[in-house]
Amino acid sequence: MQLIPKKAKESYTIKTELVLATHTNILGNLLGGTLLHWMDIAAAISASRHSNRVCVTVGVDNVEFYEPIPQKSLVIVESKVTRAFKTSMEVKIKVFIEDLLSQSRKFCNEAYFTFVALDQFGKPTPVPPLIPETEEEKKDYEEALKRRELRLLLAGKMKPEEAHFFELKYKNN
Amino acid sequence: MQLIPKKAKESYTIKTELVLATHTNILGNLLGGTLLHWMDIAAAISASRHSNRVCVTVGVDNVEFYEPIPQKSLVIVESKVTRAFKTSMEVKIKVFIEDLLSQSRKFCNEAYFTFVALDQFGKPTPVPPLIPETEEEKKDYEEALKRRELRLLLAGKMKPEEAHFFELKYKNN
Amino acid sequence: MQLIPKKAKESYTIKTELVLATHTNILGNLLGGTLLHWMDIAAAISASRHSNRVCVTVGVDNVEFYEPIPQKSLVIVESKVTRAFKTSMEVKIKVFIEDLLSQSRKFCNEAYFTFVALDQFGKPTPVPPLIPETEEEKKDYEEALKRRELRLLLAGKMKPEEAHFFELKYKNN
Amino acid sequence: MQLIPKKAKESYTIKTELVLATHTNILGNLLGGTLLHWMDIAAAISASRHSNRVCVTVGVDNVEFYEPIPQKSLVIVESKVTRAFKTSMEVKIKVFIEDLLSQSRKFCNEAYFTFVALDQFGKPTPVPPLIPETEEEKKDYEEALKRRELRLLLAGKMKPEEAHFFELKYKNN
Amino acid sequence: MQLIPKKAKESYTIKTELVLATHTNILGNLLGGTLLHWMDIAAAISASRHSNRVCVTVGVDNVEFYEPIPQKSLVIVESKVTRAFKTSMEVKIKVFIEDLLSQSRKFCNEAYFTFVALDQFGKPTPVPPLIPETEEEKKDYEEALKRRELRLLLAGKMKPEEAHFFELKYKNN
Amino acid sequence: MQLIPKKAKESYTIKTELVLATHTNILGNLLGGTLLHWMDIAAAISASRHSNRVCVTVGVDNVEFYEPIPQKSLVIVESKVTRAFKTSMEVKIKVFIEDLLSQSRKFCNEAYFTFVALDQFGKPTPVPPLIPETEEEKKDYEEALKRRELRLLLAGKMKPEEAHFFELKYKNN
Repeated sequence: MQLIPKKAKESYTIKTELVLATHTNILGNLLGGTLLHWMDIAAAISASRHSNRVCVTVGVDNVEFYEPIPQKSLVIVESKVTRAFKTSMEVKIKVFIEDLLSQSRKFCNEAYFTFVALDQFGKPTPVPPLIPETEEEKKDYEEALKRRELRLLLAGKMKPEEAHFFELKYKNN
Repeated sequence: MQLIPKKAKESYTIKTELVLATHTNILGNLLGGTLLHWMDIAAAISASRHSNRVCVTVGVDNVEFYEPIPQKSLVIVESKVTRAFKTSMEVKIKVFIEDLLSQSRKFCNEAYFTFVALDQFGKPTPVPPLIPETEEEKKDYEEALKRRELRLLLAGKMKPEEAHFFELKYKNN
Repeated sequence: MQLIPKKAKESYTIKTELVLATHTNILGNLLGGTLLHWMDIAAAISASRHSNRVCVTVGVDNVEFYEPIPQKSLVIVESKVTRAFKTSMEVKIKVFIEDLLSQSRKFCNEAYFTFVALDQFGKPTPVPPLIPETEEEKKDYEEALKRRELRLLLAGKMKPEEAHFFELKYKNN
Repeated sequence: MQLIPKKAKESYTIKTELVLATHTNILGNLLGGTLLHWMDIAAAISASRHSNRVCVTVGVDNVEFYEPIPQKSLVIVESKVTRAFKTSMEVKIKVFIEDLLSQSRKFCNEAYFTFVALDQFGKPTPVPPLIPETEEEKKDYEEALKRRELRLLLAGKMKPEEAHFFELKYKNN
Repeated sequence: MQLIPKKAKESYTIKTELVLATHTNILGNLLGGTLLHWMDIAAAISASRHSNRVCVTVGVDNVEFYEPIPQKSLVIVESKVTRAFKTSMEVKIKVFIEDLLSQSRKFCNEAYFTFVALDQFGKPTPVPPLIPETEEEKKDYEEALKRRELRLLLAGKMKPEEAHFFELKYKNN
Repeated sequence: MQLIPKKAKESYTIKTELVLATHTNILGNLLGGTLLHWMDIAAAISASRHSNRVCVTVGVDNVEFYEPIPQKSLVIVESKVTRAFKTSMEVKIKVFIEDLLSQSRKFCNEAYFTFVALDQFGKPTPVPPLIPETEEEKKDYEEALKRRELRLLLAGKMKPEEAHFFELKYKNN
């Protein structure tokens, strides 16, 4: 039975946080681990909103931290499901900081986390297909397949010859 | 001026944690974000031990969470620098859970985080080269270059034709 | 010098939270104090967004908690400045819980907090006037004066005869 | 069946806290939300001591924060039930800061929170009447009725014509 | 210059806490370390109240935990300075739990912590003598000397032949 | 039935922590109570590793804090069971700080905590005997009996005439 498809924007989640002393590393900047924690919570909520299920993190893609986020910063974590697979979903998370004085937003980083929806017995359960609407959603939707293939290739769970999108070869082996 | 090389094992760090109620998600298992936080702290300590500098997280490689870690679990986070570059270091983190009754260890997941060492002005500063000794350390050391190339390729910071190890092509574009 | 007026929606802030074990009282429901804490952070951000200043809580209006918010709930805290006075702002906070299964939102409670904007010396400093646009914003803007008068009357800082909106008398004294 | 009345002082609760870095806002002062959290815990304990029941917060009256409480301050939160109604209780909370050097106490703020006592099924259950003894307790006991009426009037749960103590009219409507 | 003596009761401190999920160990009881933390804060406040100085913990005497303190318990930590030495003070801490239903108090444990008062440069600084008044205070005051001697003997900082109160000998060495 | 003896090193536990703002007292140093908390967690893990049981803290021996541990310090807590009794175990905890720049370790303090192993009904249950191997382990094993006797003598749970190791007399009584 096919679940009723849902729009990407239905999973849109915003988590706004102030960087307080309790969140800082020894340089007085936001702890990398604290930011990952906020990203994880926001993304889990997006996954739950899409699937109407309890969801658990099963993977975190490459995350880059371009620059330190100092104490007192206003951090905005936004997340949205980019594509649904059988029982899993890819969620895109964007992090911004907002300057209090100029109120200008600066893009900080972006990451893709993967979640699995669980039924009441804690087993993976099907999730509805996702309908992308905006240009960005459509691009994310298209490329989700590629990122997924890359994850499987890199984790050794897909053979190079099974890949559709990538030809990934070791040159020097 | 070349800094004096250091052995991989000099950066070896162990962080042992009990999964208490305060660390759990809505299923009573360890929050993904809390585990990422513990991994980040352990890895930052490894990087600091190698570089004798304050270090900040600049990247997190793919992390996979294979199975839930229930409340009451004993979690062991181990980290070690795998390779030093100019001002950055790759740190490998392994996570185990230990069963209290059988005292058997189960491998949970493994990840690579990248850190940059900062001088007293907060600017990136050179770090000593790393000397791998064990078989695993040597393998990690060798493959660190490949993982780095892959990170740069995937982030679009290296052109495919500049790559030494990988041939990464989109088949269907 | 008059500061350039800002629209109400420019201060709109969303803070989404999952109720985890660490947030619960002895009945397994969200601690009243934790919810107040989330409301305070969201509202402080709204006040800062309006004033482009660091803001501090100076007052909390009556808050009613209609029903317990159980662990695992998805809580959405939304806040927006309703009216700016000389150096202070009234912020309206609405709290919703969202049911994961039905994804239906339930209104939980609503409160008004007052903040003061501080300059770099920690002294109260003027804030821009607020421009309400929607019907709700206009109503909130109008009634902010009444709520303010009531606060002053109840705190004994305004004499009953100075009141514009209310006639508040003790019948039996 | 009438429960045996209890004295106000039987619910007297003291919670002493040191303002540490973990409790501070971006100005280095006690977070408004943290203070509200401490007030809520102290008041819940007073309500439980009076009712011998688990109690939950149902309302918070106006709270004013007169001045910032800096990090390192010694904060004393005192609470006592002022009056018991059928299944609810009003609790008065006073907050003081104590100067370490002079050991002088400064009154910071005062608030009234309302709690409901729950039975083992989570349903509201009757609480014992309260016996005020000191002058302050008697005054608080008397005025609790007025504050309650005002809460009901302001929340629109009591019609102006039903009020005993207040005549509350909008002049300009 | 002799500082003006202060009464024991002037340092009396009460810290009341509810055992929430966030404080529990894997059995659902209060973490030993959390209780030690609460005892430390209360005792530090007592030491500061006596000395009007910032005080730091320098020693913790034997602490026994007779029985588990379950989640939902109401814990009362009481502390008072028992005796002042040159720059240090002994503080006695008593821990009680209070049963919500019967409101009966049960004594849980008792411990002695030692603190040193620091001046503005972080150096130990003289503290006022203590005046015990009640029978318990007088007994604690007398025996503080004995406990101190025992601490010094056990830490090897006093030679057995210098001891005034104890003859402590190894029989079988 | 005799449980199979286990080696001391099987219970060896390392907990590495960075002193962040959230762990500091009003002087910016590690809170005594936070250190006690970390020591308690590490020691509980050692006791569980030895006994393969859930263990609870029943006693903390004298702990001395020789000097403040400043924010940003790297703290290493190491623990190992020193001797097993019928259902209880003594655990030795050593605390070191490591200087980031010189990477030199400094011994901070040492303490002995006592734990009891619990069966599935929460009742004390026998634990395996401990086999000490190194010189330090053997010394700790031997002296554990003395420390235990001293604990019992000081707690008034053993009569002076029953003591094997100590002659503890009050000279001036």
